[in-house]
Amino acid sequence: MNTLSDIKLFLTDVDGCLTDGGMYYSAGGDEMKRFCVYDGMGMVLLRKAGIRCGILTSETTEIVARRAKKLNLDYLYMGVGRQVDEVKQTKLDVCKQICAEMGITLAQVCYVGDDINDVDLLKEVGFAACPLNARPEIKQIPGIHQLTRNGGDGAIRELCDMILESLKFRV
Amino acid sequence: MNTLSDIKLFLTDVDGCLTDGGMYYSAGGDEMKRFCVYDGMGMVLLRKAGIRCGILTSETTEIVARRAKKLNLDYLYMGVGRQVDEVKQTKLDVCKQICAEMGITLAQVCYVGDDINDVDLLKEVGFAACPLNARPEIKQIPGIHQLTRNGGDGAIRELCDMILESLKFRV
Amino acid sequence: MNTLSDIKLFLTDVDGCLTDGGMYYSAGGDEMKRFCVYDGMGMVLLRKAGIRCGILTSETTEIVARRAKKLNLDYLYMGVGRQVDEVKQTKLDVCKQICAEMGITLAQVCYVGDDINDVDLLKEVGFAACPLNARPEIKQIPGIHQLTRNGGDGAIRELCDMILESLKFRV
Amino acid sequence: MNTLSDIKLFLTDVDGCLTDGGMYYSAGGDEMKRFCVYDGMGMVLLRKAGIRCGILTSETTEIVARRAKKLNLDYLYMGVGRQVDEVKQTKLDVCKQICAEMGITLAQVCYVGDDINDVDLLKEVGFAACPLNARPEIKQIPGIHQLTRNGGDGAIRELCDMILESLKFRV
Repeated sequence: MNTLSDIKLFLTDVDGCLTDGGMYYSAGGDEMKRFCVYDGMGMVLLRKAGIRCGILTSETTEIVARRAKKLNLDYLYMGVGRQVDEVKQTKLDVCKQICAEMGITLAQVCYVGDDINDVDLLKEVGFAACPLNARPEIKQIPGIHQLTRNGGDGAIRELCDMILESLKFRV
Repeated sequence: MNTLSDIKLFLTDVDGCLTDGGMYYSAGGDEMKRFCVYDGMGMVLLRKAGIRCGILTSETTEIVARRAKKLNLDYLYMGVGRQVDEVKQTKLDVCKQICAEMGITLAQVCYVGDDINDVDLLKEVGFAACPLNARPEIKQIPGIHQLTRNGGDGAIRELCDMILESLKFRV
Repeated sequence: MNTLSDIKLFLTDVDGCLTDGGMYYSAGGDEMKRFCVYDGMGMVLLRKAGIRCGILTSETTEIVARRAKKLNLDYLYMGVGRQVDEVKQTKLDVCKQICAEMGITLAQVCYVGDDINDVDLLKEVGFAACPLNARPEIKQIPGIHQLTRNGGDGAIRELCDMILESLKFRV
Repeated sequence: MNTLSDIKLFLTDVDGCLTDGGMYYSAGGDEMKRFCVYDGMGMVLLRKAGIRCGILTSETTEIVARRAKKLNLDYLYMGVGRQVDEVKQTKLDVCKQICAEMGITLAQVCYVGDDINDVDLLKEVGFAACPLNARPEIKQIPGIHQLTRNGGDGAIRELCDMILESLKFRV
C-alpha cells in the first residue's frame, strides 16, 4: 500500500460513509439524506490541494447529485456496484475508467466504503478506509484503515485531514 | 423453536424495528420515517437466498409502502395488529394467512417486533426477535432473541446475517 | 404529593418532552418535529384506562396539532406559557381551566415539562415529572420525578407505564 | 480576556454550533437543518437581558434566515467567512462592522465557532467558545472555552446560561 501523500483521487460511497446510513422516506419515496458539514469542508480542502474528489454509489437519486454539485465534486457515478444484482459496471470498473482518464493507477486512489458491494474496490485501491460503522466483512479486509468516526459524523473529514497532513511532509 | 436455517418467511414490524421509533411530523401530518441502508441490503440478500420478506404494521402510511416497494418485498400488510383497538385482523391472523398461502407453518417464520401489539405473533413464530430498544414486555417473552442493535440502526441486518450464516451450514 | 393512581389528567409539554428538542427548519420555517412511537402508544393506553391526555405548548404550530389529532388527545393548548414574554395565559392558568371543566383538582394532574416556562405548573400539580434531558432548573424542583429516558426517546411512555402499573394496585 | 459580564454582543456560527452539523438534503438541495429548542430559549433570554444576538455563517440559505427571524435575532450575516475561497468579507470583518455600529469593542463580543473558517474571529473576541464537537484546530486556540455539550444539543444554551449567571453578580 502506498503512502497517503501519493493519493491523487479521493472516492467515497454515500450511504453509511457520507451519511449515517439513514434513509428518510416520505410518502413520495426516498426523500432525504443527512450529510455532514465537516465532510463537505474536508473535500473542499482536498480539491484545493489538487486532489480530485468523487462519489460512487449503487443508488440513483437526485439527493446525491445535489450534494455533489454543492461540493463541486469532480466525479459522480450513480447506479454502480450493486454486486447483489446483475449490473454492467462494478465500482471497480468505474474507478479504473477514472484512473485511465486521469492517467493514474489504482495505487494513487483512496476509497471509503462500508458494505459488501464495496469489497472489490477496497481491495484494489492504494488506500482503503471505512467508517467506524462499517459492516464486519469490510473491517476484515486486510490492510483497511478503520476511521474513528461514524459515517455522516466526520469520518470523511478525518480521512481528508490525514491526507492533507501527509502533504505537509511530502518532499 | 426451530433452527434459523428452516426459516422460509421473514416478517418485521416497522416503527422501532425498521426505524428507531421516530415519527417525523410536519404541518401535513406523519411525513417521514428514517430507515437504514444496512437493513435494506439485508432483506435484499435474504430474498436472493430464497426467503420471502414482508412487513406487518398497525399504521397505514404511504411512507412504508414506498420503502417496501423500493426493497421489492413480497408482503406488505398495513393497518393490522392494533391490539389496543378493536380490529378485525391481528398480526397473528395475517401471518397465518401468509403461511397458508405459502404452504408453510409458523415454525418456519421469523418475526421481529418491539411493542405490545407484537406479543401474540412473537409467541407463535419459529424464531422471534426484538431490537435492543424493544419494550420491556417484549424482552421478557420466553425464548425471544434480543438483537444487539437498535431498530433503524442495523438490528434487522444483524438478524438477516444470522439467517444467511445459518444457510451456509444447512445440509 | 398524591399517588400516581389518583391521576385523572395527563398533560405534557412538546419540545424536549414529546421530542428530543430538535426543530427541523426548511426554507419554509419550522417544518418538522420528531415524535416517538412509544410515547404515542403510551397515551393511547392511558386514554383507554380513562385518563384524559393533553398537550400544553408555548409554540403554535400545525405540526403539534397533527400529532395531537393522530393520538386523539383530549386537550391541545398552543401558544401558552411563554413566561419570557408578556402573555395572557400561563400553563398553570390553562391547567386550572381544564381542572375546573373536569371537576378535578391540581392534585389529580400529572405534568411533564423540561424548561423554565414549565416551572410554575410543575410546582402545583400532583405529580410532576421531567425527561432526563430537562434543564438543570427543572431537575431541582422539589419532589419532581426525573425519568430515565430523554424526551422523544420514550420518556413519556416510561411515565405512562408507571401510571398504568399503579392502577393495577388501586383499591 | 474580559469577563462574561462585559459581553454586549453574542454571535454564533450555524452548522455544528446551532446544529449538530447535519445537512439534510432532498432532491431539491440543502433542505433542512435541525436546531435546538434550548438554544432558542437561551438567545431569547439573552436579548431580554439587553445583549444583542446574531448569526454569522458562510452559507446562504433561507433555512437560517427563517430560524433567525423566529428568534428575533438582531444580526444575520450569511455568505461570509469562507476562508477557503476568495471572499470579500471574513467573519472578523463583519464582526468589526457590527462593533462599530454598536459602539463597542471586540472585547465585548462572545463568539461561538467550530471549524477553520472561524479561527480568525475566535482569536479576536473577548470571549471565544466552541461546542464539544468542534474541530481539533479550534479546540487548540489559546484561551478558548470548550462547552460540555454538542452543537444542536444545547451548547449555545449552556453558554447563554453562563452569561446570564455572570450578570447576577455584576456590580
